[in-house]
Amino acid sequence: MADLNAVKQALRAQQIETPSWAFGNSGTRFKVFAQAGVPRTPEEKIADAATVHRFTGVAPSVALHIPWDRVADYAKLSAFAAEHGIRLGAINTNVFQDDDYKLGSVTNPDPAVRRKATDHLLEAVDIMDQTGSRDLKLWFSDGLNYPGQDDLRTRQDRLAAALREAYDRLGDDQRILLEYKLFEPAFYATDVPDWGTSYAHCVELGPKATVCIDTGHHAPGTNIEFIVSFLLRQGKLGAFDFNSRFYADDDLMAGAADPFQLFRIMYEIVRADALSPSYGINFMLDQCHNIEAKIPAIIRSVMNIQEATAKALLVDRDALFAAQAAGDVLEANSVLMDAYNTDVRPLLRDVRVDAGLDPDPIAAYKRSGYQERIVADRVGGEQAGWGA
Amino acid sequence: MADLNAVKQALRAQQIETPSWAFGNSGTRFKVFAQAGVPRTPEEKIADAATVHRFTGVAPSVALHIPWDRVADYAKLSAFAAEHGIRLGAINTNVFQDDDYKLGSVTNPDPAVRRKATDHLLEAVDIMDQTGSRDLKLWFSDGLNYPGQDDLRTRQDRLAAALREAYDRLGDDQRILLEYKLFEPAFYATDVPDWGTSYAHCVELGPKATVCIDTGHHAPGTNIEFIVSFLLRQGKLGAFDFNSRFYADDDLMAGAADPFQLFRIMYEIVRADALSPSYGINFMLDQCHNIEAKIPAIIRSVMNIQEATAKALLVDRDALFAAQAAGDVLEANSVLMDAYNTDVRPLLRDVRVDAGLDPDPIAAYKRSGYQERIVADRVGGEQAGWGA
Amino acid sequence: MADLNAVKQALRAQQIETPSWAFGNSGTRFKVFAQAGVPRTPEEKIADAATVHRFTGVAPSVALHIPWDRVADYAKLSAFAAEHGIRLGAINTNVFQDDDYKLGSVTNPDPAVRRKATDHLLEAVDIMDQTGSRDLKLWFSDGLNYPGQDDLRTRQDRLAAALREAYDRLGDDQRILLEYKLFEPAFYATDVPDWGTSYAHCVELGPKATVCIDTGHHAPGTNIEFIVSFLLRQGKLGAFDFNSRFYADDDLMAGAADPFQLFRIMYEIVRADALSPSYGINFMLDQCHNIEAKIPAIIRSVMNIQEATAKALLVDRDALFAAQAAGDVLEANSVLMDAYNTDVRPLLRDVRVDAGLDPDPIAAYKRSGYQERIVADRVGGEQAGWGA
Amino acid sequence: MADLNAVKQALRAQQIETPSWAFGNSGTRFKVFAQAGVPRTPEEKIADAATVHRFTGVAPSVALHIPWDRVADYAKLSAFAAEHGIRLGAINTNVFQDDDYKLGSVTNPDPAVRRKATDHLLEAVDIMDQTGSRDLKLWFSDGLNYPGQDDLRTRQDRLAAALREAYDRLGDDQRILLEYKLFEPAFYATDVPDWGTSYAHCVELGPKATVCIDTGHHAPGTNIEFIVSFLLRQGKLGAFDFNSRFYADDDLMAGAADPFQLFRIMYEIVRADALSPSYGINFMLDQCHNIEAKIPAIIRSVMNIQEATAKALLVDRDALFAAQAAGDVLEANSVLMDAYNTDVRPLLRDVRVDAGLDPDPIAAYKRSGYQERIVADRVGGEQAGWGA
Repeated sequence: MADLNAVKQALRAQQIETPSWAFGNSGTRFKVFAQAGVPRTPEEKIADAATVHRFTGVAPSVALHIPWDRVADYAKLSAFAAEHGIRLGAINTNVFQDDDYKLGSVTNPDPAVRRKATDHLLEAVDIMDQTGSRDLKLWFSDGLNYPGQDDLRTRQDRLAAALREAYDRLGDDQRILLEYKLFEPAFYATDVPDWGTSYAHCVELGPKATVCIDTGHHAPGTNIEFIVSFLLRQGKLGAFDFNSRFYADDDLMAGAADPFQLFRIMYEIVRADALSPSYGINFMLDQCHNIEAKIPAIIRSVMNIQEATAKALLVDRDALFAAQAAGDVLEANSVLMDAYNTDVRPLLRDVRVDAGLDPDPIAAYKRSGYQERIVADRVGGEQAGWGA
Repeated sequence: MADLNAVKQALRAQQIETPSWAFGNSGTRFKVFAQAGVPRTPEEKIADAATVHRFTGVAPSVALHIPWDRVADYAKLSAFAAEHGIRLGAINTNVFQDDDYKLGSVTNPDPAVRRKATDHLLEAVDIMDQTGSRDLKLWFSDGLNYPGQDDLRTRQDRLAAALREAYDRLGDDQRILLEYKLFEPAFYATDVPDWGTSYAHCVELGPKATVCIDTGHHAPGTNIEFIVSFLLRQGKLGAFDFNSRFYADDDLMAGAADPFQLFRIMYEIVRADALSPSYGINFMLDQCHNIEAKIPAIIRSVMNIQEATAKALLVDRDALFAAQAAGDVLEANSVLMDAYNTDVRPLLRDVRVDAGLDPDPIAAYKRSGYQERIVADRVGGEQAGWGA
Repeated sequence: MADLNAVKQALRAQQIETPSWAFGNSGTRFKVFAQAGVPRTPEEKIADAATVHRFTGVAPSVALHIPWDRVADYAKLSAFAAEHGIRLGAINTNVFQDDDYKLGSVTNPDPAVRRKATDHLLEAVDIMDQTGSRDLKLWFSDGLNYPGQDDLRTRQDRLAAALREAYDRLGDDQRILLEYKLFEPAFYATDVPDWGTSYAHCVELGPKATVCIDTGHHAPGTNIEFIVSFLLRQGKLGAFDFNSRFYADDDLMAGAADPFQLFRIMYEIVRADALSPSYGINFMLDQCHNIEAKIPAIIRSVMNIQEATAKALLVDRDALFAAQAAGDVLEANSVLMDAYNTDVRPLLRDVRVDAGLDPDPIAAYKRSGYQERIVADRVGGEQAGWGA
Repeated sequence: MADLNAVKQALRAQQIETPSWAFGNSGTRFKVFAQAGVPRTPEEKIADAATVHRFTGVAPSVALHIPWDRVADYAKLSAFAAEHGIRLGAINTNVFQDDDYKLGSVTNPDPAVRRKATDHLLEAVDIMDQTGSRDLKLWFSDGLNYPGQDDLRTRQDRLAAALREAYDRLGDDQRILLEYKLFEPAFYATDVPDWGTSYAHCVELGPKATVCIDTGHHAPGTNIEFIVSFLLRQGKLGAFDFNSRFYADDDLMAGAADPFQLFRIMYEIVRADALSPSYGINFMLDQCHNIEAKIPAIIRSVMNIQEATAKALLVDRDALFAAQAAGDVLEANSVLMDAYNTDVRPLLRDVRVDAGLDPDPIAAYKRSGYQERIVADRVGGEQAGWGA
């Protein structure tokens, strides 16, 4: 049996990073539905992220996206965040929204575009120096829409060169998180399509480069917890971008599409004793709330991850290992399912109350008047928009 | 052996409809890369479509999208098209880009939104009366992002009611083409996700409702030519939206991702003697040229379909049926592959020359100076944009 | 809030049919791992099925597979089942294991093979007359491995002809359950690949033909609960073959791969008031227990379906419909998830105790000595084997 | 323009290895359809493989499967092959058909089973010493059917230990080819599911370990030519198992399902100058001819690979690289498609005639009387059967 006090302690210590862009408008290629009260500035996004932390207690940092969150003074932004009770987290680069990047950024056939894109990566490290961020998160939309469009192998050479430059620029306590994605926006080939590609580059780069798993970036049928387990074994799992999907990169709330999968992922984390912030994995959200209210959706996502984590912590590992060693398929599966089938919401309510929080973060948020306030206040100016 | 004269005649008679929106800008949720020379008005789109027809000889009609192509006087637009040597084709409704449609159009829980959406369908028939269009093409982005978000069954009732209204409004020579799509922009459930759903509604509506197959709208592994064959057998195949895909609804040039599949689809058409315009299938393109030049890409797509059709026509059906009847698996496959492996480009060059066209439409387009002209002329104003 | 007494009553009334073949050996094309104590005769399979019913109380019938379960006297077999406390259920035809069926059964190019296959369907109805079975379950492995191998359309004509013969042979209280499957054993095209094909044939056949949904027979990403909901609306859902899958037709224990999906399926059943046996849906299992003990695996599957059903019954439908009508995406999803996140195992233990059963069927089975007895008794003879 | 003489020379030098087991019976879990004339001994399989080489001229070696091809004297078997004009190729291990391997072989929780499986790997190297084979091909069916069944991470430790033992046993000119597979026969998790896992183990093992790509072992939508290109860049591509698939591991004839994909794969080979036998890639077939005649199917597969290779060799690489460098998407795609759309069958007929072969290998085989001879001769004894 799992020790309930240890479980509670682990849940209290858990940290989930929210993404600044998820508080802004988002949508599909068909339509972005704007929402009232959406932030217009990096500061307003930070205020929203702080609000999520205030009600959940486990979201103490917010990831930035450059240039969406570009400001004149990052030290000041950092201080602003601190005043609101959170800190600035990973710096995300954006080399996909400039017209120059139509045929790629760091893998573009044009050396001038590659230079520009690589410079942006270096700029992001400059910003990290100012924000005190540890993590440089790299996602490249680079790829091809048509067979023959460009040379697959040469693009890897270009990619490796740009990564090397960024890696060499890192400070001692900084690191690269290299994300991969099967497709979209490139529809034939992506330059970092899978964990293997990201892993191979990270190994060649060195110890400060690790893989970032976005749970929505895989081919159908991919066993994500296997990748989690494998990268943990290799010491190369650096971060998650949590979200959920039924089909492609749907970017729905974490845990909404397949809560059992999220539980299995968190079990591999727990089993490797990798949940604690000291282990170094950055558990981030990366989601789009196209039709639902943004702040409550992010709170809900945080809670879904907490619930999956609580269940993972409740797995009776002694019993599980014993059944596995005995080759008792049904019993081993049953031990795992016992934890999954447990209703952990009362436990999490206790954890929250112990931490001085409201046991029901969504209800507390609704009662707080925050939503009404931002709807009233944030009128005029330009709403922040991801992909818009 | 296929009769070469009959093959040439069939190829000369083939008709492919181009979509007005494919001449405008398009992109993904991450970025729309604008192109120089892109049309700003329905008239400019028609001019581009006419250009495709001028060089290919098999694209004599252009589909419109309402409200993107809304004009004050459709009769005048029709005349404008005729002057340019083409005609107006299917009228596509758009009930996904208004803020009201965030939770659906004809299946929205709000009756007022449903009314508005249904009225738009009726308006489209009004337009058809003026343009002389036969086809009302209906694609609904309606669906759910989250389990529980709305009631799956009730939404079917609402869908059926709206379809019935539109159907009853059709004139004698008009019909509904009901498209289906597995996902996107809805990520959990789509209200018309597959051909079965579309088919069942069409059967209930009556003879003037038929299914439209968009080749990019299926689950991975779906055998599209089976659907083609089945719907032909049931008398319910009304139209195609051709494009190609590696992953999801990538909307790449037809024939670019899996030319063998396109050939197999066209073989089912040929085998059912359904290629001729008199049969009534509307062979449309529905594509997005996000990174490639638009008019040449559409010409190329038309040529790809021509090549697949030529190969399908070259299948030695007597030999094929004989091998099939004999249960000779390898021989039957071999007969089909013989046609597929044939280089039909010389044949199609002959067909073009016979029709008074340049044998190489892309080269002829490039030499024509049209591209330079539109780049120079179409400055200022707002570029037409799909999804932008 | 759901009425707890009504929930309990519904759970007590639930009926799940077990498949005789799941008690026998099974495997993959790579290897069948034989298990000790596996039945050697139809009677021994019935005894095992009765054992599952004895411990679960909700599995009162067993489906037969002909010719695997062929006996001289079906009335006697029926009486044998009754003595053991269960009844004979659906009769499954097998037109895939005879050498004649290499290129298909009812769609074979050879008319003699088609005749043989169709005669087998008619023989199955003869057996139903003797067993008192209502359901003729038809699954055809018919299909093609290679493009061109046979004519897709002609095969539909042959299929329709065979179905018509079988349909016309049905008695007043008998019906056809027509199963569909995307692929395997045919790898290019299957003659009944999807629900649409099955549905179209059933509509043409008449009211005594309905669709059977095998939960493992879909393309990746297919929304199964949508199909459930749609077929219920059309009055054409006749049966389930429950099992679960991560990739293809894995035939794992129901609820093992995606318990949330199973819950969503059961919710559509409950929402349509279609759970009760009087509604007429046959809720069957169709699984392969390749590496796990068979009887406990089947008990576990039954329990997994019970748990999904209990959660579906607990959905607060008033609250759900209200949130849906209000367009409150998060609240509607939340109401559904509240039921899913509930631990229903205590409730089901109560239901079992109320019914005079042990609250823990697996433990009770283990204590019963049945497993030891069959291992000791069933020595010699030929073990029953699915696919072996 | 590609130099036609160089193209012909490359095609003449091409080598494809046939698999001994593909000449034997095979099937699905539903049924193995036995064929007349199928070999009963390793020698008869070698005779069939030699026949394929006699008519194609490019299949000079045959892969063995142990224990299916176990003989007392491998030197004698090697001499037998030489007499028939071919040589023995890769040695394939089989650790999936013994009852002990129900829960895995080298990753089994039971150390005794792991020992037995690892010993089998070592035995295979002993055999290689006798046959003079260079390649030890390792495919493990090891995996899990249910979450929790065993510990994902521990299984990797066990796998690494077994691979290390086998690696250390290799002679100077021997190497490991480590295959990966997404699923089947394991349905929840496979211990080597993807190229990344195989690659990571190979890197850790050392230079004598390389990845084997089976073209049918990927998740839907996987871009296989990307993997080819990436592994070539890393110097870790050792071999192919060619076959084709529409859905899962269908094991159809190479080039039958997606000939364009096969061409793209071969283009990456050609582009990296890796086609020549001296480069070291083992181009093997690994197929199942469940319903078609085996020897002609293998000849056809060889020809399909030749055609894809010929097209790849015809790509005008100067023009392609120029268009790629210029960012001309349509032109670059067009250059590639020009080669693909070429009918290379006349060229290959020339190559065959130049090599003293019949230009039409299938027709020549049919005329040869070989098939009639083996049907007459191979009566009695036990037919060789894969998976049966």
